[in-house]
Amino acid sequence: MTAPLSEDDIIARYFAPLAGPGGLGLRDDAALLAPPAGCDLVLTKDAIVAGVHFFAGDPAAAIAQKALRVNLSDLAAKGAEPLGFLMALALPGATPEAWLADFARGLGEDARAFGIELLGGDTVSTPGPLVVSITAVGSVPNGRMVKRGGVRAGDFLYVSGSIGDAALGLKLRRGEGPPALSPDARAHLLERYLLPKPRLALVHAMRDFAHAGMDVSDGLVGDLTKMLSVSGVSARARLADVPLSDAARGAVRLDNALFETAMTGGDDYELLAGVPPENAALFEAAALAAGVAVTRIGEAIAGTGAPEFIGRDGVATVFARGNFSHF
Amino acid sequence: MTAPLSEDDIIARYFAPLAGPGGLGLRDDAALLAPPAGCDLVLTKDAIVAGVHFFAGDPAAAIAQKALRVNLSDLAAKGAEPLGFLMALALPGATPEAWLADFARGLGEDARAFGIELLGGDTVSTPGPLVVSITAVGSVPNGRMVKRGGVRAGDFLYVSGSIGDAALGLKLRRGEGPPALSPDARAHLLERYLLPKPRLALVHAMRDFAHAGMDVSDGLVGDLTKMLSVSGVSARARLADVPLSDAARGAVRLDNALFETAMTGGDDYELLAGVPPENAALFEAAALAAGVAVTRIGEAIAGTGAPEFIGRDGVATVFARGNFSHF
Repeated sequence: MTAPLSEDDIIARYFAPLAGPGGLGLRDDAALLAPPAGCDLVLTKDAIVAGVHFFAGDPAAAIAQKALRVNLSDLAAKGAEPLGFLMALALPGATPEAWLADFARGLGEDARAFGIELLGGDTVSTPGPLVVSITAVGSVPNGRMVKRGGVRAGDFLYVSGSIGDAALGLKLRRGEGPPALSPDARAHLLERYLLPKPRLALVHAMRDFAHAGMDVSDGLVGDLTKMLSVSGVSARARLADVPLSDAARGAVRLDNALFETAMTGGDDYELLAGVPPENAALFEAAALAAGVAVTRIGEAIAGTGAPEFIGRDGVATVFARGNFSHF
Repeated sequence: MTAPLSEDDIIARYFAPLAGPGGLGLRDDAALLAPPAGCDLVLTKDAIVAGVHFFAGDPAAAIAQKALRVNLSDLAAKGAEPLGFLMALALPGATPEAWLADFARGLGEDARAFGIELLGGDTVSTPGPLVVSITAVGSVPNGRMVKRGGVRAGDFLYVSGSIGDAALGLKLRRGEGPPALSPDARAHLLERYLLPKPRLALVHAMRDFAHAGMDVSDGLVGDLTKMLSVSGVSARARLADVPLSDAARGAVRLDNALFETAMTGGDDYELLAGVPPENAALFEAAALAAGVAVTRIGEAIAGTGAPEFIGRDGVATVFARGNFSHF
């Protein structure tokens, strides 16, 4: 390790190259953003902390990408096209320069892949664990943001991709997964925990055909319950219809209790959508065209009670605030 | 202490009441901001960490206000009217609810005082110190953001308010100040360290009359050097003209070495401006009308060398990167 870099050195060497025109080379106090004409801005801010949301020993590039992607996932759920982001980085004093270089490389790769620019931010030192706080900015045509509270009785409830992989990956990471799981399944689940995939490909499908959307970050059961509660409706959902990856199915076959982990664990970063029946075919076709699977898992119904989850055994269960008690 | 609140409880009880219409009651994944017509947005993000930027034992309300105000200070320097803010809060596990209540009260008082709304954010737990990361959003008429790099040769250099109070307050806080300092002076300096005053009253003066602006957060000598370097000009500045409060003057009288602390210490959150001579009288009049003192401390000159600081003894000194060596 060489002498520690100053904040100015870190910014000039590693982050200024990621700044676009709005970031003013990260040489100003603030970023400048000319909002696209006819658009509203959508802003979201999620922070991740070492030892809480990721392992301190994860590859630096993956930590940067996770911090960015959990925010982009929120934009996707709102039907918003990402424009850029700001980042505050609280760095432990002994962070080696090679770590910073890898972090910036990962961040830059994602910024290019998602077509967004680093607008600005702050690098500070901390005596505690690494904290990465990102504010992502996106845009939607005026009045078109997909709200969490827009589910109406009769809407079909959809979920993207597959549910539970990341929660099972975290179990494996902690050495708690089923030992007999195949190496391929293990690798898939670990990767899904390490690196969420924001479903930006669904931005147009969400905006054009959904009444409501949110991203699944705290577990499907809890997040669906939350979306329905904000919308003032209830629902019937079928857990047997919730899409699982082959890897997750393999894990559940080896240990049936892991089904509960999959349904209530977090870090999915899939999208939940409430879609009116007349739009269902269009929504499914748009998702298919975008290359992301969407699966209908239930229907919203009138009422303000907690949603009814029909378990794989056909038994209906109501969860209080998403706490998982029995299927 | 009662049972710890969940993130949802904390948001619903303490932060949702601070949300305006764009924050959607903090019950959505993201905030919605309709940018004012004909305006650019200005975004800034500063984070503060317990034990680094403030004392963990500071009043919770003051910590919240400092976190917000250091961001509003950046907006003021850019000539931007504040619209709202997002906040990520990394909370140590044992944070008592009374602390949260006081933090939210302070934040809410400032949000009302500055006419801005809480747009959204994230509350996470951390095994480390408290981290508050705020992203503030402001607006300027299209193309009117006051840049850091806009100083031109011939511009007069101004600073608002008084310089050095906070750095001296920090010394007192650490028990390093002059013991003979009067209780009033001591209280003034401690208060200036605890609670910066963002110079939002100068937004119009900056926007209408300044070529360039930045806020002084890392010490006057270093920040002025930075502003000139980004602008591609040099300067002659007179340290004897830098405005000191009565309290700071009292401290320097008791210990002459504290003058260096005042000029190079940080946390001033005053504004630096480069103003063309033909605008100088208008700039001064606008500041006077706004109730904030501005003082001319030097002039920008052609050249790319480090600025020359003329000390109180009449001796000129050049500082490399703002490091203070001698006056």
